[in-house]
Amino acid sequence: MKDHPTEMNGAESVLRSLHADGVEICFANPGTSEMQFVDALDRTRLMRCVLGLFEGVVTAAADGYARMAGKPAVTLLHLAPGFANAAANLHNARKARVPMLNLVGDHALRHQKYDAPLSADVEGACAPFSDWLRMGRDAGSFAADAMEGLAAAKGKPGRIATLIAPADIGWDAGGQIADPVPSVGPAPLDEAAMNEAVAALESDDRTVIIAGLSVLEDPAALALLQGIADKCGADILAPTSNRRMERGRGRVAVKKIPYPINAALDCLSGYARAILIETLPPVAFFAYPGKPSLLLPDDCQKIALTGPDGDGPGAVSALADRIGARAARVRDAAPLPIPQAGGITPAGIAAVLANTLPEGAIVVDEAVSSGGDLFAGGDAAPPNSWLALTGGSIGIGIPLSVGAAIACPDRPVVTLQADGSAMYTLQGLWTQAREGANVTTIILANRSYEILKGELRNVGAQPGPDALSMLNLDRPDLDFVSLARGMGVPGRRVEDIETLRRALRDAVAEPGPYLIEAMI
Amino acid sequence: MKDHPTEMNGAESVLRSLHADGVEICFANPGTSEMQFVDALDRTRLMRCVLGLFEGVVTAAADGYARMAGKPAVTLLHLAPGFANAAANLHNARKARVPMLNLVGDHALRHQKYDAPLSADVEGACAPFSDWLRMGRDAGSFAADAMEGLAAAKGKPGRIATLIAPADIGWDAGGQIADPVPSVGPAPLDEAAMNEAVAALESDDRTVIIAGLSVLEDPAALALLQGIADKCGADILAPTSNRRMERGRGRVAVKKIPYPINAALDCLSGYARAILIETLPPVAFFAYPGKPSLLLPDDCQKIALTGPDGDGPGAVSALADRIGARAARVRDAAPLPIPQAGGITPAGIAAVLANTLPEGAIVVDEAVSSGGDLFAGGDAAPPNSWLALTGGSIGIGIPLSVGAAIACPDRPVVTLQADGSAMYTLQGLWTQAREGANVTTIILANRSYEILKGELRNVGAQPGPDALSMLNLDRPDLDFVSLARGMGVPGRRVEDIETLRRALRDAVAEPGPYLIEAMI
Repeated sequence: MKDHPTEMNGAESVLRSLHADGVEICFANPGTSEMQFVDALDRTRLMRCVLGLFEGVVTAAADGYARMAGKPAVTLLHLAPGFANAAANLHNARKARVPMLNLVGDHALRHQKYDAPLSADVEGACAPFSDWLRMGRDAGSFAADAMEGLAAAKGKPGRIATLIAPADIGWDAGGQIADPVPSVGPAPLDEAAMNEAVAALESDDRTVIIAGLSVLEDPAALALLQGIADKCGADILAPTSNRRMERGRGRVAVKKIPYPINAALDCLSGYARAILIETLPPVAFFAYPGKPSLLLPDDCQKIALTGPDGDGPGAVSALADRIGARAARVRDAAPLPIPQAGGITPAGIAAVLANTLPEGAIVVDEAVSSGGDLFAGGDAAPPNSWLALTGGSIGIGIPLSVGAAIACPDRPVVTLQADGSAMYTLQGLWTQAREGANVTTIILANRSYEILKGELRNVGAQPGPDALSMLNLDRPDLDFVSLARGMGVPGRRVEDIETLRRALRDAVAEPGPYLIEAMI
Repeated sequence: MKDHPTEMNGAESVLRSLHADGVEICFANPGTSEMQFVDALDRTRLMRCVLGLFEGVVTAAADGYARMAGKPAVTLLHLAPGFANAAANLHNARKARVPMLNLVGDHALRHQKYDAPLSADVEGACAPFSDWLRMGRDAGSFAADAMEGLAAAKGKPGRIATLIAPADIGWDAGGQIADPVPSVGPAPLDEAAMNEAVAALESDDRTVIIAGLSVLEDPAALALLQGIADKCGADILAPTSNRRMERGRGRVAVKKIPYPINAALDCLSGYARAILIETLPPVAFFAYPGKPSLLLPDDCQKIALTGPDGDGPGAVSALADRIGARAARVRDAAPLPIPQAGGITPAGIAAVLANTLPEGAIVVDEAVSSGGDLFAGGDAAPPNSWLALTGGSIGIGIPLSVGAAIACPDRPVVTLQADGSAMYTLQGLWTQAREGANVTTIILANRSYEILKGELRNVGAQPGPDALSMLNLDRPDLDFVSLARGMGVPGRRVEDIETLRRALRDAVAEPGPYLIEAMI
């Protein structure tokens, strides 16, 4: 097929090649320079096309899809400004090592030298948010470039790959179907690090095992890790923000390193040794006057059993063999009794989740300032997948949930969504409605950028009127039920915990999206 | 004041210095790394603080403010993802040569070497969307850097200046008030180009004068230009997209180069000479198979009387002296009778505008596919300022109008807003409500990315079901009245032209924002 010119255009060759290697879905917000892809998607009908009304919806949905499907989607974005709109959620996906392939249209090659209204430095805009970046050169090599991008995305750990697609090489005939490119597998286990880890666990020193990425997605690996920890008297922690945690009854309940700086330092103080598996040494979200950036004590020995590019479950298995540990019998987290009445608190919502989520629910956690108390709900609930905001860039929850729901149409999704953060990519509600996604969004309505008030105090200030005008979301109050209705999503406002419980129970059982504005 | 260390922190020194040079307003969406600016704004109370619930709102509002106030505002943005969210509307502002100074928080210098969740290449993210870019170095030089940025922004033509603000240099004591830095004035007039322009106008060749930027903002310069054109038998055109046009009865009605490629080529065919004043040779928005990128004929002589950095009104005045022309007596555009009944069309809305806008109205034009027919309304109306989408990146109208209303609190603003584009920065409605801005938003609801259907045909394709799924905004229909209500903006849906006329008349006369969803 590759030896003679074809009538197939470049865009079609890209789509056919990607589809043959397993890409089934295209999340899109296209413009003029992507019309040849729209046309090729339309003619070939190989991929499901999901429209977002804003590019940040597109990339967050592709992220949620990849977290649950375990493979990348492709996105379709429009020039430098469209990529920029997509970038905040690409940042989050990149920090989570989520695989994704972006096709970013650019002007035709001959048009790029002019100062057209939409001309800009597309490569420059893409570079800070891409792990792999290439500009397509001609129709004949376009699909081969896309397949290299796909391989980069799928390698270990996942990567953000971006292929810039000048419009003319999509129109031009001569497209060539390209074969799959093998992805890079995990880095081999470091025997020296393994020896250090074994020595740490066999010592009397206080030792913590911090495990991230695929370890947290693998209940069997976590049970084995718990067996190691039990045998050696070590603790297990997860990073503050995680791509996906497999949680719930019958599974190991792993605590996270807290977000607030003082709590994070307290949590990690006193450890003499830290074994890191598929994660880097934990760093404070922000620097604060008089506080360290690195959260583990200076004199703590940091042992990188694997980096993020390693095979964490394999390393756990090898470590268990060395230690002579077996999988722990999991002790379920204590039940959380449902509060019977009264106002809505994060702890109350945690109890509602524990008692209301069905087995197999997917929880999307962009709870921000309510998140610390809510987290316990996931351990006490039936088995569930828990997806968090990973890069600190708010505005991911609503569209992330769309992608997760599309990847797992038989599993209800519940999104714990801070109100301020919801406003960044609220347009995702429309895609929920269009796709009939069974997503229940719980808006945690405290009408404030609450977390920033704490941060302001952390730099030694007390908010006065002008500061509060930038931290409070009142004047006017947001009405999320009305906002949701405007995008075709039904909903209701709830002010007490029992009404919230009933609303959540009903919404999860019904198909299609629903929004609950929970006044806290 | 500059010779001894101060207790003032870096953030406060920046704000005090900017304010002393005329910066009165800060459009903000701050995060943790900007808390020292929030605190300093709060303590000094020197600037009005306007919160946007999304960064694209912030930069579009600063753009609208600068277009009407004639001077820059400062924005406050959060790290690389926050800047990325702001970038699409910075792109628009940059293409319009609008002055703006962005303060973009970054991690403290000592924290930047770690892979914290929000760490990213802030400079790399800012560079493609900034004309001037600097990273702050220490508290003592921070204000001086800001003043250089302000001078760059205010120079001729306007620029986007971005100062990256590491958190610690904002906290640190030792801030030094910095003096204003002189801005670069307009480039001097090119006598050779002037001679060519005079020769063109005195020839028998068909000649077009294409005038942009400050010429279009200056009714006296336009009247003089019309006198030149009348005397010499030349035509006057404006670029397709313009920062601000002073329009309406008693002013010269300047036609724009059309957006559609064929209409643009037709409009410019046959000219042997083109005189360019404060604009570059016109370029097609996009490249199309078989069509040229440059819109003027190849054999047309292009005379750059001034570039975008020149003094257009001064050049017009000098040209009139050379030609011996005087200001034309302006012939008003033909009146547009109001359609008495029937459905809503863009031409009908143009007539409603012509007959309903009060003198001094500001019109924000993000009408996109409805824009061609709507434009005539501005010439037939009383004197008004007409602000357009300038860089082709949709999603500017709603927040641009907030900034214009804040700059001109006594002038009503009417926003002509395409529905698809409205969804990119819809959050601006909340800022309209919070600021009590007298903005009437007319949503042009065709429930489609209508312009892209034309673009798809331009590349030779006919849309099938999958293409239409990416171009139609139905399933579900958006309900803009409900969306507006959710952000505190009252509104109504109208389906006939007479109801639209009455709704617009009432909304313009009332204080505060209002939204009219016009079904077209």
